[in-house]
Amino acid sequence: MKIITISREFGSGGRELGKRLADRLGYDYYDSEIISAVAKNSGLDARYVETQLNEHGWRNFPVTFRGTLGSSAYMQANKVQLLIEQKKVIEEIASLGKDCVIVGRNADVLLRDYHPFTIFVCAETEAKLRRCRERASEKESFTNKELLRQMKEIDKSRARTREILSGSAWGDRASYHLTVNTSDWGIKALVPAVADFATAWFSK
Amino acid sequence: MKIITISREFGSGGRELGKRLADRLGYDYYDSEIISAVAKNSGLDARYVETQLNEHGWRNFPVTFRGTLGSSAYMQANKVQLLIEQKKVIEEIASLGKDCVIVGRNADVLLRDYHPFTIFVCAETEAKLRRCRERASEKESFTNKELLRQMKEIDKSRARTREILSGSAWGDRASYHLTVNTSDWGIKALVPAVADFATAWFSK
Repeated sequence: MKIITISREFGSGGRELGKRLADRLGYDYYDSEIISAVAKNSGLDARYVETQLNEHGWRNFPVTFRGTLGSSAYMQANKVQLLIEQKKVIEEIASLGKDCVIVGRNADVLLRDYHPFTIFVCAETEAKLRRCRERASEKESFTNKELLRQMKEIDKSRARTREILSGSAWGDRASYHLTVNTSDWGIKALVPAVADFATAWFSK
Repeated sequence: MKIITISREFGSGGRELGKRLADRLGYDYYDSEIISAVAKNSGLDARYVETQLNEHGWRNFPVTFRGTLGSSAYMQANKVQLLIEQKKVIEEIASLGKDCVIVGRNADVLLRDYHPFTIFVCAETEAKLRRCRERASEKESFTNKELLRQMKEIDKSRARTREILSGSAWGDRASYHLTVNTSDWGIKALVPAVADFATAWFSK
């Protein structure tokens, strides 16, 4: 079984790369499917689960957790529960034994025993801003400053979640087999090259 | 003209990767040839030039430079001169208009206008130690502690040289098109995958 995991900076196009990679290689693709399964298993609303899991809200974690068990601490504890549930779902996916691409969710760390090919996707800030703008609907109008703040927060939160789960640094070059910078590529042009790289990895 | 530059952590196998990549693609390969040319142009001994350029000795740079112009400051000034000479040599290589792979020497930054495909090669510490041990002759017997110190110093010095030349961070994922982790690969197995990636880049 071949598993490819994609970790990514917000706005780098990592999700699109993962989807296209799965299409090209004929692998299963997991992203929001994981959220749905976690919601189902925990009996909670999918949108609530998504908000909880989608990598926000660690910022006050140490403070609130050490404080009284207020609503904020309750939410954090809830988030930890959901992360544990998510871990189970990801392990179930792997236990199906089918080739797959998993985007985000620290699958690279959780599935270490399955020897996944691990990719980190990054881009220069300018390129990420451009991508965010292209992706945003007409109704959404953020200033660059707002987008940059959002990027920074989400990436910081992803890093924090990874640290809590694995103790290892998010985005650290030695933690992934391949780090791809999408700044100067269209994702479409990049996909065959990454697919070939992954294929070489699995056949080495 | 296609230029591939390889930046690398000490012990990661970046040089071997560069050489094999050039062989596979039929590109010219530059590494110690640059040192020889700098030595020739500056009328200095090649081994002296190599020692000066081989990315050591920045550590005391700011201190000695602000101090009196002692022998240490003289040597630093000399090193700067050699870096300028090296820059000229690298620009001459590029002006030949032939496809080539250049290892180290901040060629990615110096040749930015030629739009090189830029690769950074890294590895986990354990893998780098193993590689250093395999490469060392029987006469050289370093402890792991010594090797680690050497690794750290050389990488720090490479980072410092890059910073002085370009103001940009060495090893920063967004500064290279591709960051390859050699920990779990043999370099030989890695070469075709990297070559295909570079080819896709140049034909995009």
